[in-house]
Amino acid sequence: MRDVSIIGIGQTKVGEHWDKSLRHLAGEAVLAAMRDASIEMADSLYVGNMLSGEIAAQEHLGALVADFVGLRGIEAVKVEAACASGAAALRQAYIAVAGGMADVVIACGVEKMTDEVGDVVTAALALASDGEYETFHGLSFVAINALLMRRYMYEFGWKHEDFAAFAINAHKNAVGNPHAMFPKPITVERYEQARMIADPINLMDSSPIADGAAAVVLCPTEQARAFTDNAVRIAASAVATDALAVHDRPDPLFLQAVYLSARKAYRQAGISPQDIDLFEAHDAFTIMAALSLEACGFAERGQGVRLAQEGEITLEGRIPISTMGGLKGRGHPVGATGIYQVVEVVQQLRGQAGANQIKDAHWGMAQNIGGSGATVITHILEALS
Amino acid sequence: MRDVSIIGIGQTKVGEHWDKSLRHLAGEAVLAAMRDASIEMADSLYVGNMLSGEIAAQEHLGALVADFVGLRGIEAVKVEAACASGAAALRQAYIAVAGGMADVVIACGVEKMTDEVGDVVTAALALASDGEYETFHGLSFVAINALLMRRYMYEFGWKHEDFAAFAINAHKNAVGNPHAMFPKPITVERYEQARMIADPINLMDSSPIADGAAAVVLCPTEQARAFTDNAVRIAASAVATDALAVHDRPDPLFLQAVYLSARKAYRQAGISPQDIDLFEAHDAFTIMAALSLEACGFAERGQGVRLAQEGEITLEGRIPISTMGGLKGRGHPVGATGIYQVVEVVQQLRGQAGANQIKDAHWGMAQNIGGSGATVITHILEALS
Repeated sequence: MRDVSIIGIGQTKVGEHWDKSLRHLAGEAVLAAMRDASIEMADSLYVGNMLSGEIAAQEHLGALVADFVGLRGIEAVKVEAACASGAAALRQAYIAVAGGMADVVIACGVEKMTDEVGDVVTAALALASDGEYETFHGLSFVAINALLMRRYMYEFGWKHEDFAAFAINAHKNAVGNPHAMFPKPITVERYEQARMIADPINLMDSSPIADGAAAVVLCPTEQARAFTDNAVRIAASAVATDALAVHDRPDPLFLQAVYLSARKAYRQAGISPQDIDLFEAHDAFTIMAALSLEACGFAERGQGVRLAQEGEITLEGRIPISTMGGLKGRGHPVGATGIYQVVEVVQQLRGQAGANQIKDAHWGMAQNIGGSGATVITHILEALS
Repeated sequence: MRDVSIIGIGQTKVGEHWDKSLRHLAGEAVLAAMRDASIEMADSLYVGNMLSGEIAAQEHLGALVADFVGLRGIEAVKVEAACASGAAALRQAYIAVAGGMADVVIACGVEKMTDEVGDVVTAALALASDGEYETFHGLSFVAINALLMRRYMYEFGWKHEDFAAFAINAHKNAVGNPHAMFPKPITVERYEQARMIADPINLMDSSPIADGAAAVVLCPTEQARAFTDNAVRIAASAVATDALAVHDRPDPLFLQAVYLSARKAYRQAGISPQDIDLFEAHDAFTIMAALSLEACGFAERGQGVRLAQEGEITLEGRIPISTMGGLKGRGHPVGATGIYQVVEVVQQLRGQAGANQIKDAHWGMAQNIGGSGATVITHILEALS
C-alpha cells in the first residue's frame, strides 16, 4: 500500500444557498480544491452525499459532478453512509490511491437541504435510522438522540446545562471561520433559553441543517511535492459499523463503532489519543460530542461532559474539538460534513486556521458518524512540513 | 495490484417480493454467496443500490446489511451510480482487494421497487437523468430512450418490428433461468401488439421494474483455491462516464462512455471483442441493447439491430447476449442488476448455466449502464478451470 497525502482543499460557505443548485455547490468546492492542488485533471472522483434523491431531485451525482467540473469521462461514483457519506467518499478515494488504482483522486461531499421545509428534511434524515424498527414507530433522528441524552443524564448524574460548554465552544470557534453558518458567540443563558426540539435536546444542542460542499485532492505522498509544498499526510483511515437501531446495541451509551474505528486509526498511525493535537468531532448533538470523546479514549465513560466543562475542548485545551465551529457552528450539510472536517484539519496542520490556529499542531483527527453511531469513519492526518 | 477472483455467488428470484423487505432480500443474496464461497467472515461489504431512500424509506444500507447478515462491525458502505449501482459496488470491492486493502470482500446489489405505484417509481427512476435540464421539463427516463430509439430508426432506416429479436431472445433465455421474473417466450406478434409506453417504446421494448438482490464474494486469485475449486477471475474492471443529459452529448446515438469503458476493459484483459464468448448487455430497452452492441465493437454503427435479426445474439450466435434473460426477461431491480449480470457470467464460466449453457465459455463480459449512458461499468471475467 502506498502512503497517501492531501494536496488540495476547497469548500463553500455553509448556509442557505437558495441561489445555487447542488451541482453549483459541488462544482465550487471541487474547482477550488483543484486550483489549490494545481491540477487540471484527475483519475477519478468520489462524491459523498446522503439526500440528493430525496431533497434535490437528483441521483447519479458521480457522473453529474465530474461532467460539471470539466472532467467528463473520468471514473466517478456517489458513496452514501448517512451523515458519514463525506468521509465514506474520502475513504474510497484513499483506498484507490493507496492501492495503486489511481494517482490523483478527488473526494467531494455535497448536500443541499434548505430548499425543503423542516418536516420533509426531518423525514429524510430519519432514513439514517432503522426504518422498520425505529422510524416506523415515529422516532425521528433527533428523538433518538434525545433518548440517549436523557439516559446519559440519568446514568451519570448530569443536568442539561452541563452540556452548554459544547455549544459555546462550537459557536465561539465558528466566529473565526469565514465558511461557518453561525459565526455568533452564545452564552450559557442563551443555551438554556433555546427552543426545545425533542426534550432534553434544544436548538442549541442541535447542529443546523444546511447547504454546502467541500472537496479534497489526494495523491501518493511520494508524488505530493510535485504539486504542493504543504501536503498533509493521511496517517490513518478506518471504518467500523454497528447496528442501526439503538435498541439492538448491548450498551446504547457506549459507541462501539466509534471505539473500534478510533482504535484502528490509532494503531494505523502508530500513536495514542494523547498525541492528537485537535479533534474534529461529529457534534451533531451535544450528546454525540460527549459520547464520541469517551469512546475515542479522550475521557472516561460518563465524563465527556466534564472535559467540556473544564475547558479542555477549547482551542487552548488538552483536546480541542470543533476548532472551526464543528457541526454546530459551521453547520451540518450532512453528506458534506465529513469532508469539511478533513478540510479544517488540513487548514490547522498547514497553519492556515487564522485566529483559530492550534499552536504546533502536528496530528489532527476527524471523525464522521452516520446515524446514531452505526457507521463511523476516522481519519488521522499528519503535518508533513 | 493483485489479481482478483470471484469465489462465491448468490441471488434471489427477481419479482414482486411484497412479503420480503429490503434487508431480507439483501440478506438472502449475501448469505447465499457466503455459503457458496464457504466463508463466515468478510473484511468489508459494498452495497449497490439506487432508490432505497425514495422507495423503501431506508438509506444507510452498508451498516444495515452488514449487521443483518451477522457481520456487525465490519467496514460497509452504499455505492450509487443510478442503474449502474450494482457494478459500481463490485468495482469498489475490486479496488479494495486488488489494491491490498482487504482480502475477502462482498459486493451486493439490492433494489425493492414494486411496493410503490408506477408513477412514483417513474419519478424515482428519473433521478438518473439530469434533474434540472431533462426531468424538470417532464422528460421521463423511458421518454429519453424513446427519443433515442426514434432518432435511431430515422437515421438508420429501421422499423419498430426490427427490434423484436432483442425481446424475443431475452424472454427465450429467461425460460432457462429459475431466478428470472418473466420466464415466458414471446413472438413477433406479441411484441408488436404490446401496449405503448412512450412511442416508439412499447412494453416489450422495456425491462420491468422489480425487486431482487444478488451478491458476489471476491478475494485475491492466489488465495481463491483455499475457498473453492471453481473461482472465476476478474480479468478487467473499467468505468467511464459521460454527460447525464443526452442533449449535452455531441452524438446522442453513440454511447461514448460504453465505448471508453469497453475499450479500457479489453485492454486490461488483453483481448479483443472477438474473444468474448458471452455478453451480459444492459438491455433496459431494446434501443440500449442495440447501441451498446455497437459502441462495444460487436457491430458497426446502426447495425446492432441487424446483429439481433440475424440471430447472432442468441445462445448459439456469434455474441450471445442476455443469456439468462437479461434485464428484459430476468427483470431489472435497478441497483441489483449489475451484480445479477456478473453472477450470470460466473454461472456460464463455471458451466452451471443449465439449459442456457454457452459451450466452452471462457471469456464473459458484463456491462452495467447508469442513466442513458452516463455511467458505464464493464467487467470481463475469465474461467480459471
